[in-house]
Amino acid sequence: MSAVSEFDEAIAVLGRVGDPGAYDAMIGEGWRIGGGVNGGLLLALAGHALRLELAEPSDDGTPGHADPMAISAYYLSPGVPGPAVVRTDVVRRGRAVSTGQASLVQPAEGDGGGPGPEVERMRVLATYGDLGSVSDEVTTSAQPPELPPPDQCVGTSDAPPNFLRHASLLDRLDLRLDPATTGWAVGKPSGNGVIRGWLRMVDGREPDPLLLLLAVDALPPVTFELGLPGWTPTLELTAHVRCRPAPGWLRIQVSNRTLSGGYLEEDAEVWDSEGRLVALSRQLARATPQRR
Amino acid sequence: MSAVSEFDEAIAVLGRVGDPGAYDAMIGEGWRIGGGVNGGLLLALAGHALRLELAEPSDDGTPGHADPMAISAYYLSPGVPGPAVVRTDVVRRGRAVSTGQASLVQPAEGDGGGPGPEVERMRVLATYGDLGSVSDEVTTSAQPPELPPPDQCVGTSDAPPNFLRHASLLDRLDLRLDPATTGWAVGKPSGNGVIRGWLRMVDGREPDPLLLLLAVDALPPVTFELGLPGWTPTLELTAHVRCRPAPGWLRIQVSNRTLSGGYLEEDAEVWDSEGRLVALSRQLARATPQRR
Repeated sequence: MSAVSEFDEAIAVLGRVGDPGAYDAMIGEGWRIGGGVNGGLLLALAGHALRLELAEPSDDGTPGHADPMAISAYYLSPGVPGPAVVRTDVVRRGRAVSTGQASLVQPAEGDGGGPGPEVERMRVLATYGDLGSVSDEVTTSAQPPELPPPDQCVGTSDAPPNFLRHASLLDRLDLRLDPATTGWAVGKPSGNGVIRGWLRMVDGREPDPLLLLLAVDALPPVTFELGLPGWTPTLELTAHVRCRPAPGWLRIQVSNRTLSGGYLEEDAEVWDSEGRLVALSRQLARATPQRR
Repeated sequence: MSAVSEFDEAIAVLGRVGDPGAYDAMIGEGWRIGGGVNGGLLLALAGHALRLELAEPSDDGTPGHADPMAISAYYLSPGVPGPAVVRTDVVRRGRAVSTGQASLVQPAEGDGGGPGPEVERMRVLATYGDLGSVSDEVTTSAQPPELPPPDQCVGTSDAPPNFLRHASLLDRLDLRLDPATTGWAVGKPSGNGVIRGWLRMVDGREPDPLLLLLAVDALPPVTFELGLPGWTPTLELTAHVRCRPAPGWLRIQVSNRTLSGGYLEEDAEVWDSEGRLVALSRQLARATPQRR
């Protein structure tokens, strides 16, 4: 295990000298899924840059806020491996929470093969707080998803080669899917709009609020279980981080209730090893029409 | 019934000459709830300005997009009746959808009683499309909420005077709540995190996508049924409009599953008179601690 985890390397950013709020990043080859880079990884990358902006206390004594409590990403074009810039703006610093904005851009390929004009991949708004300072009080009617233990679930090495070919992301993830929700992998989707699984990082990197931003978008699209094997580009994804996760396996459930007019919502909930609901997300995605 | 509905008057905006993308508005007295102006009304106002920016076809033939498909608001400070400015930016124009950003500001009161520096109330990101052009195909396992007919529900005139005093919003709304979810109004909250009701506008204004942005935030906070009678300021609200609504009553259900660390999610779903799920929303709100 290297000193820096794959995930931390992927979301590493370097502040640009003389350009306040701008951070350089390098998106690796290892986070591809389908036609682009995983949207959750891009969100965690932008979320990391925003964290650096918002976590420092202000000169006037306003405390810093390091945890993304609510973060919304509007996806504009598919991210690709290579250099990227995250430009951040502080919208408001408050005592309990602070709000920031970010834009993730990448240079398009120019005419001579060099870098061309910037293309925006994603625009983000987020409110950060300090999840370490909130009370432990919980009132909930939500139940963690029930699924067999990890060793009785389906690893991604069992996925169809067609699927794995464009999914270098899956080499980073130890993902174990509930066999009751993997009919799609053998051509027999259940028709239920639910996929459940366990997740941890292959290199042992433990979960924290930034990793949860990857986790909410790490399972196969719920449309697979609806019999729609195509990709589902995300238009918008909002995640709420409700609690700092404990070390160990995460349990994740993604679900859909309504697909209409070619668009669907995908809801994700993430539970930690202590049985706490640590993150909720919803995305609006476009369903690729079914081949007939 | 006046020629212009109360809602359309409230969200009316006027483009500023010489200041592209900026719109002046006047927030009326009639949309107060608790300590400020209803967050859904502010969202509809910003959504209206964004619609004006995004609905026009581009010179290059890119079609315009008039319907908010996904819209996220980050609330920064409580809105108050009086003048406001919505500053919009087009983030990306695409063939199927376009994305824009908006900031709603109001002048603070200056030292001499005149207008002072601007205070930002809300920052918004949104993706617009053309809901008239999408297919009619629907796959759903979602069921409309079951509730008694409007004439067997509880009107807001039955609400406690304490509640009505700071709720001029309720004079605009014909809101009929399911008596099974109004225990809070008589000091007997059910403890279930659900409130259901029917909604139409008092002046007969029929629903459309912009009105749905008000509808998702129009019911009493779900915390009332959890025995928390205080206000619940919204940090973030994201709405998805899935379908243009038919005329007539809307059915709305708001629900919560987990309140943790003093924060909760409130999910809303809105169904039209033809039994279609027309909008979904989720907000992250702060619960006011219970008086002991």
